[in-house]
Amino acid sequence: MDYFKNDINKQYFQCDYMEGAHPEILKRLMETNMEKTPGYGKDDYCDRAKAKILEACHCPDGEVHLMVGGTQTNSTVISAILRNYEGVISADTGHINGHESGAVEYTGHKVLALPNVDGKLVAADVKKYVEDFYANPTHEHVVWPGMVYISHPTEGGTLYTKAELEALRAVCDEYKLPLFLDGARLGYGLVADGTDVTLDFIAKVCDVFYIGGTKVGAFCGEAVVCNKKGYLPHFFSTIKQHGALLAKGRFLGIQFETLFTDNLYFKIARHAVDMAMKLKKGFADKGYEFAMDSATNQQFIILNDEQFERLSQIAVFELWERLGDGRTVVRFCTSWATREEDVDALLAQI
Amino acid sequence: MDYFKNDINKQYFQCDYMEGAHPEILKRLMETNMEKTPGYGKDDYCDRAKAKILEACHCPDGEVHLMVGGTQTNSTVISAILRNYEGVISADTGHINGHESGAVEYTGHKVLALPNVDGKLVAADVKKYVEDFYANPTHEHVVWPGMVYISHPTEGGTLYTKAELEALRAVCDEYKLPLFLDGARLGYGLVADGTDVTLDFIAKVCDVFYIGGTKVGAFCGEAVVCNKKGYLPHFFSTIKQHGALLAKGRFLGIQFETLFTDNLYFKIARHAVDMAMKLKKGFADKGYEFAMDSATNQQFIILNDEQFERLSQIAVFELWERLGDGRTVVRFCTSWATREEDVDALLAQI
Amino acid sequence: MDYFKNDINKQYFQCDYMEGAHPEILKRLMETNMEKTPGYGKDDYCDRAKAKILEACHCPDGEVHLMVGGTQTNSTVISAILRNYEGVISADTGHINGHESGAVEYTGHKVLALPNVDGKLVAADVKKYVEDFYANPTHEHVVWPGMVYISHPTEGGTLYTKAELEALRAVCDEYKLPLFLDGARLGYGLVADGTDVTLDFIAKVCDVFYIGGTKVGAFCGEAVVCNKKGYLPHFFSTIKQHGALLAKGRFLGIQFETLFTDNLYFKIARHAVDMAMKLKKGFADKGYEFAMDSATNQQFIILNDEQFERLSQIAVFELWERLGDGRTVVRFCTSWATREEDVDALLAQI
Amino acid sequence: MDYFKNDINKQYFQCDYMEGAHPEILKRLMETNMEKTPGYGKDDYCDRAKAKILEACHCPDGEVHLMVGGTQTNSTVISAILRNYEGVISADTGHINGHESGAVEYTGHKVLALPNVDGKLVAADVKKYVEDFYANPTHEHVVWPGMVYISHPTEGGTLYTKAELEALRAVCDEYKLPLFLDGARLGYGLVADGTDVTLDFIAKVCDVFYIGGTKVGAFCGEAVVCNKKGYLPHFFSTIKQHGALLAKGRFLGIQFETLFTDNLYFKIARHAVDMAMKLKKGFADKGYEFAMDSATNQQFIILNDEQFERLSQIAVFELWERLGDGRTVVRFCTSWATREEDVDALLAQI
Repeated sequence: MDYFKNDINKQYFQCDYMEGAHPEILKRLMETNMEKTPGYGKDDYCDRAKAKILEACHCPDGEVHLMVGGTQTNSTVISAILRNYEGVISADTGHINGHESGAVEYTGHKVLALPNVDGKLVAADVKKYVEDFYANPTHEHVVWPGMVYISHPTEGGTLYTKAELEALRAVCDEYKLPLFLDGARLGYGLVADGTDVTLDFIAKVCDVFYIGGTKVGAFCGEAVVCNKKGYLPHFFSTIKQHGALLAKGRFLGIQFETLFTDNLYFKIARHAVDMAMKLKKGFADKGYEFAMDSATNQQFIILNDEQFERLSQIAVFELWERLGDGRTVVRFCTSWATREEDVDALLAQI
Repeated sequence: MDYFKNDINKQYFQCDYMEGAHPEILKRLMETNMEKTPGYGKDDYCDRAKAKILEACHCPDGEVHLMVGGTQTNSTVISAILRNYEGVISADTGHINGHESGAVEYTGHKVLALPNVDGKLVAADVKKYVEDFYANPTHEHVVWPGMVYISHPTEGGTLYTKAELEALRAVCDEYKLPLFLDGARLGYGLVADGTDVTLDFIAKVCDVFYIGGTKVGAFCGEAVVCNKKGYLPHFFSTIKQHGALLAKGRFLGIQFETLFTDNLYFKIARHAVDMAMKLKKGFADKGYEFAMDSATNQQFIILNDEQFERLSQIAVFELWERLGDGRTVVRFCTSWATREEDVDALLAQI
Repeated sequence: MDYFKNDINKQYFQCDYMEGAHPEILKRLMETNMEKTPGYGKDDYCDRAKAKILEACHCPDGEVHLMVGGTQTNSTVISAILRNYEGVISADTGHINGHESGAVEYTGHKVLALPNVDGKLVAADVKKYVEDFYANPTHEHVVWPGMVYISHPTEGGTLYTKAELEALRAVCDEYKLPLFLDGARLGYGLVADGTDVTLDFIAKVCDVFYIGGTKVGAFCGEAVVCNKKGYLPHFFSTIKQHGALLAKGRFLGIQFETLFTDNLYFKIARHAVDMAMKLKKGFADKGYEFAMDSATNQQFIILNDEQFERLSQIAVFELWERLGDGRTVVRFCTSWATREEDVDALLAQI
Repeated sequence: MDYFKNDINKQYFQCDYMEGAHPEILKRLMETNMEKTPGYGKDDYCDRAKAKILEACHCPDGEVHLMVGGTQTNSTVISAILRNYEGVISADTGHINGHESGAVEYTGHKVLALPNVDGKLVAADVKKYVEDFYANPTHEHVVWPGMVYISHPTEGGTLYTKAELEALRAVCDEYKLPLFLDGARLGYGLVADGTDVTLDFIAKVCDVFYIGGTKVGAFCGEAVVCNKKGYLPHFFSTIKQHGALLAKGRFLGIQFETLFTDNLYFKIARHAVDMAMKLKKGFADKGYEFAMDSATNQQFIILNDEQFERLSQIAVFELWERLGDGRTVVRFCTSWATREEDVDALLAQI
């Protein structure tokens, strides 16, 4: 990773967690630093953050739990929902299926991977999978489908439509499968151009979801929202058991209270998307192809070897996938912290 | 927990994680906030923090892993050390045995609890337990003792002596049991009056231990030290699997680099112990009894009902244990953030 | 274990699983051997065995699952009942706490061990434990008591009275704790002199229990009885997942059908108890002391070194516990297969 | 499953575990029934069975463990081999991936499924998978490939060649991956026409494998062979922990001793294969198509709806897979117990 060191001539677009926290968060941490509060999230900051989140979700009967990171949140929530004989349905490209070191399996559950379409899980595929399961005369020897996991945006930066989510919900209702949405980058999805998915819709369509802080301006933090109080009984103990309970819980509370004050969460997400759209247009104008059509802060560009070499000189980005034919998919990320002048500088050089 | 709200007339000694972070840490977070670094602890701050910690430990061949919280660190390290058929020996008062919602058992391992003496595990008891295990003709039907867990300071604020740790080490060597030390409050133990245990001694006597940040000035963070490189193979993946890998890893790196620059960690721990000793003397002078003789930042005082009632009016402390005879053990904690004037104000009223 | 080889001059009382199966079972296995049946317990023999067991239990609304062995049954049932944040209350001498290689913990759950009285769990102790748990202001950081495990007879051969079981039930009802009874030696308990506990009472007082076959005449097999159908949802899949599903399920069905035809189970258990009572009286008459007053097929006798040495020449028994004062507790077991002439021969020599 | 009841006009070919045990086994169980032996496999019968198995494997330095069933053996062995951060590579059609109710995942490990070719795992695919894993710059966030699982015969009745197994071994050696072979139907594979794979070759090429008893003449039982003593440290305790330790261990010992005396295991397997080949030829002669070309006791035949209907009137077989185009794959199994007259009767009617 030494390319990160001191090369001030490069533009950095590797991921959306390269900087610290949004300055407003740092300011609030400074202002509150010497106040004394009880530990484990039993403080006023957490209470207010939770209230503001529920308000933003239009979900007065819901419940919020603040956790530290995404993999942690996924495996803790999933294992709290499932019974021992159940697994979780996910797109094969889902984060839980490939990039979490087997965290879900570590809790005893199989990830039931279905083929993705544009990074998304398709309701009809879920329905067929579950129907086939029940039609199988020996299904008692097979892992029971116990819930559905999706992420929004997906790993590929794509977005579900309202209709797609409603279709998934209908399948979930038919087979009594809880629907869980990983929103590690939720902000970037909610402010994207052309989306018809809103935060309160997500709160209605999902049983549990989380609002990602780590990738949208916080040092760390994910806010788990259950749309019914008590949906995950004694979840506090489960969080503790999973090593996910922060002693100085207010550190999460202050951050989320700040993000959900004056729409900060959405404003900074929108800035990132603006930068991504500028970058996307700039690359498209130069004739670059895209692996996925993403309206969010992650852009997946297909490069040939020569382009890859040349771009590597001027920018830092993430190698996503070698296509095997000499072409490579790379990811450029923007974030709340991306400066327009850096995007311009990059585009000037491609 | 409404006693925490707005009662400016009370002195707060409930725990050592009531405030944010040491101002020096906040300052460094401000200064570095907009720098771009790679994620997951692959940044220079983490590298430097680890180097400084190994230097402080006089342990050039060791390895450091930065994690977020104590329960997380305990269960992740313990499950990484043990094989499936093994359990971990602990004092019955050990944190892992009673206050972690079964985090160790959740990973599949039994906590083999032995009676404590002053909160400590006694080498002779461990030896007898292991000898009895091997002498038992049906020991293959019993959980194998696989490692030894201790904390320093203990849950009761007490400290091992060098001789006690060496005796434990000898038993561990005899039976090939790794020795793991939970140092969530390690700083407060290392600077205590009269202790002969130093950081480099701990690095020598233990296979793995951790240096607590959460309770000694950081927002969060525990630095796991293995005294041999590669002691826990692919531990990075294990950390990820346990949901314990921070995306913005530098947040931990910056904090620990700050704590281990100019002896800050030890200085602020010493301040806490000074405040605790003043408080201890103040109570002792008034004739109060103590449940444990603690030289560290936690003081366990025995109160009768009348005292309990009266002290509750003027201070916030933690109810530790009801003795059943009308008396109650309560805990007063100091920390790096405790102000001498608050200790004085408290003592003036008792 | 070479004392087992060819020493025809010794009497063997080591355990109650030294022989094969009751001849009536072997006969039935012979008669049915070439019939073709479907696998996994979906055969008529299993159906009839289950019906006969439910009838013997006076429990028409119950459900029976046939499993292979005791440890398997304990860990499978317990993990099926508990949620992740819960543990199982057991006497410290309970089989699950000491002699199952951590099988329960392997499934992620803590055994919450309470002191035994004559090998039994006392209702008042359970009540106090649970009350203390709820009274503890930080109980969310502690393993939740999720169910109660008892065995009847206990590890020490002792028996609960009806009143004791009712008292446990009352506590279980008060705190919504399922009551699970390990009946690995249930037959020997039900036919003991002086007991007021019957099979149908057990089926009423417990949520789940099992009737041990392995130690009461079968090659192997434990019949799990739930007193309500569907109490353990999809338990078939759980059994499979735990590796506890026998492909040739009828092997268990035939054995249990045989045992529950013409009261065979109770008759052979009574024979074992008769032999044990004769043996007990014989030892008592010679002035031997007993560690426990057992009315069942296990007798725990206290021997001094000289007695131990001498008895070892003439009999095989199990060393139970060295008392540390030169005395040793040993166990003599009888079974359905014990011959009266062997008991007489033993008693003639002591 | 009522088609099993009393329909003496049908021929039964549903599976290879429809009957009891081979008569020779029953005879030995009768002869030995009243002998007294120690429990848990510490008896002479187990010792002799193990010695005979090692001799048949030409593997004097190996070690044998007798377990009860296949799923149990798979999950116990796999979890004993793997470290927490590792998964097991398997063909997507592998038994562990689809028909064990998630038993492997229950122990915390992901099944890394690769596409099968004729039911088999291909060495080149394994090599590519592992190479890609190591080439992935973020592979530390992915489950580590920790071992390779194959079955022989496969789920589809197909067989590896010696060369294919050697190629897998070479990849395993290159990447230090243990090779584990599920031999639930091993006998039927070893005696197949045209195979060049022998038992001693398997003992050489695999680190661990098992010889299936349940499907080859025993009531139950699988003999795990490690080709080096102590390969799975303290595996006895692991077996106990997994609930897989039979109290009357000799029941397994007697069965395996019998099977490995006078080549009984191979003789009865050969009978089953003879019957399968006759059945295969009979169907082929009538123009039926086969989904897999199997030289073992399982034959997978493709039926159209009319054929399916008609065959269902005269025989019992297993529905394997609906192809979606009106055709169905069904399985006919023979076993040691299949009578030639029943095969003839079936063929006469198709």
